[in-house]
Amino acid sequence: MKRRVYNFSAGPAALAEEVIQQAADEMKDWHGSGLSVMEMSHRGKEFTEILATAKADLRELMAIPDNYKILFMQGGAIAENAIVPMNLIGRKAQPATIDFINTGHWSVQSIEEAHKYAKVNIAASSEDAGFTYVPARDTWKLSKDAAYVHICTNETIGGVEFNYTPDVGDVPLVADMSSNILSRDFDVSKYAVIYAGAQKNIGPAGVTIVIVRDDMLGHTVPFCPSAFDWKTVAEHDSMFNTPPTYPIYIAGLTFQWVKRLGGIAAVEKTNIAKAKLVYDYLNSTDFYVNKVPDSDRSRMNVPFFLKDESLNATFIAEADAQGLVQLKGHSSVGGMRASIYNAMPIEGVQALVAFMKEFERKHG
Amino acid sequence: MKRRVYNFSAGPAALAEEVIQQAADEMKDWHGSGLSVMEMSHRGKEFTEILATAKADLRELMAIPDNYKILFMQGGAIAENAIVPMNLIGRKAQPATIDFINTGHWSVQSIEEAHKYAKVNIAASSEDAGFTYVPARDTWKLSKDAAYVHICTNETIGGVEFNYTPDVGDVPLVADMSSNILSRDFDVSKYAVIYAGAQKNIGPAGVTIVIVRDDMLGHTVPFCPSAFDWKTVAEHDSMFNTPPTYPIYIAGLTFQWVKRLGGIAAVEKTNIAKAKLVYDYLNSTDFYVNKVPDSDRSRMNVPFFLKDESLNATFIAEADAQGLVQLKGHSSVGGMRASIYNAMPIEGVQALVAFMKEFERKHG
Repeated sequence: MKRRVYNFSAGPAALAEEVIQQAADEMKDWHGSGLSVMEMSHRGKEFTEILATAKADLRELMAIPDNYKILFMQGGAIAENAIVPMNLIGRKAQPATIDFINTGHWSVQSIEEAHKYAKVNIAASSEDAGFTYVPARDTWKLSKDAAYVHICTNETIGGVEFNYTPDVGDVPLVADMSSNILSRDFDVSKYAVIYAGAQKNIGPAGVTIVIVRDDMLGHTVPFCPSAFDWKTVAEHDSMFNTPPTYPIYIAGLTFQWVKRLGGIAAVEKTNIAKAKLVYDYLNSTDFYVNKVPDSDRSRMNVPFFLKDESLNATFIAEADAQGLVQLKGHSSVGGMRASIYNAMPIEGVQALVAFMKEFERKHG
Repeated sequence: MKRRVYNFSAGPAALAEEVIQQAADEMKDWHGSGLSVMEMSHRGKEFTEILATAKADLRELMAIPDNYKILFMQGGAIAENAIVPMNLIGRKAQPATIDFINTGHWSVQSIEEAHKYAKVNIAASSEDAGFTYVPARDTWKLSKDAAYVHICTNETIGGVEFNYTPDVGDVPLVADMSSNILSRDFDVSKYAVIYAGAQKNIGPAGVTIVIVRDDMLGHTVPFCPSAFDWKTVAEHDSMFNTPPTYPIYIAGLTFQWVKRLGGIAAVEKTNIAKAKLVYDYLNSTDFYVNKVPDSDRSRMNVPFFLKDESLNATFIAEADAQGLVQLKGHSSVGGMRASIYNAMPIEGVQALVAFMKEFERKHG
């Protein structure tokens, strides 16, 4: 299959070529049904099969234990920033306390929203160093009786990633995994709740995956909209409201693609190799700068800066001309960012590094 | 283009053949960008153009005045049942009162959810007659100081539809238009808020259209999630969180298709003709039954019952065999239902009526 461009967007992000090809092939007639998936009643036998298969495949891929529900919701991680506290603070007397580990932009978003619902304790933060590292577990100052501890396992803007699952004892661990779910092996049993917008490693924007341990259901505050009460959603198998059927279908195609690749272990191995290609090169030069220490560097998002920032526009233009697109960094930090999620083939990363070297040779 | 089947699903529902063909054609490479729409950064120039065009086309089609915002949200009408009160009750002292006109299943859903946020006044109801009619305006018992009056302009299960826009004076009129938006001419200026899940007349499931008058913004209760605060969404041009990009793209293709047909006026004319075909036949026979009086019959959803219900399974099987699919009625009422939204061509309705006549001839 001809690669069209290499798309380094932070999200919505590149999908696997095979997934897009299959979506194109099946658009007008899914499996002889005469229907596009977009037109199917969510309660019909065709979509029921698509949903059940997607759920089973995700459970298999992530080895999700039986005492966890898989929910397909709407609103993305930004909506979950409110939905999570609305579902969990009821476990404690009000006002409840939530412990946060603040590792960057997305942690900050979660924290700001949580203020509406609970007392917020910043148990650890790397804000002092511009969010360039993940605070070590032994520095965290957890509350006595928090409703839960919240982490963001990968920060797309700062480019820092948890390389371990923290032990927080009996307190429920809640993780925003939007940007590294399915990219590495997670022990789901160590988390009480995992949530992720699909538009990075899973599928198109518009579907949110929530993986929730059974004992976290049923603690919702009275003002939580029914459509966002995990217990209600679970009881209706993600069909309390009409689910985002097409994004779920594409997520399902992605799960099947990951299975064909050999599952998470195989994907993680490739992701390690891809990240090493870029970071090894960044370590070898001072033409480009990345301030995150090796141990906390994200495998998914590689932010970097040109030492001479007057070359930024030239860098973007020349990269675009070579079909290396969406490399501009987030507006809040500037510079460049290469997002190299699961669907970015190693050839794309090789092409990027080759381009960066050539650019350094020409302009260095 | 070869029609695959005639899909009478109540939603997600048939899309126009041309829209599906265009989606298939553009799946792998949108307008030479090298990207699938599913992979585009929502902030990139390509998707920005898609969103702006969709918004402008919807504004033109519905003649939406300048003092109304168009929002693309997530969660469907079911989520809006909570989002609407969370955005509007702040206009009044708490607890506020909401007036509802109860015309069927979807009205009931809105009412049940509203109890979480406000005092509910059922100003009129057709529950006494099994939701087979729309209560006349002069029978409504509105409150003195309601935050708003809520109607559902078309009930998909009962098959009843408002054939007029009620005058409620200075009280904001809020309408769930999920199932008849874009199907007929509405005077938007008579509504304070219109909301609609897209999966009937607009596009695939996963995007919710909210059309809101400017003075309805900024009254949100403190516990409303930011992602569902209309003012926040409006200020970020539907990009406070990552919008459901692909469903928005398909909605946009549908808007363009409606424009090519000649706009709402042309579509409404066809919808009247389609509905007349079925209802004229229903009026001519007692083999099939529909209890809604002519004046309140839905042009979008035609529920009907076989007088001899023992023939139901045979009816469905024979219809399926002829490519007339998804005719089974909603589980709460049984019988049959033909949903004939914008995307159902008149040929599909002709085929349905021909089949119904033949079925009556064989089994009558």
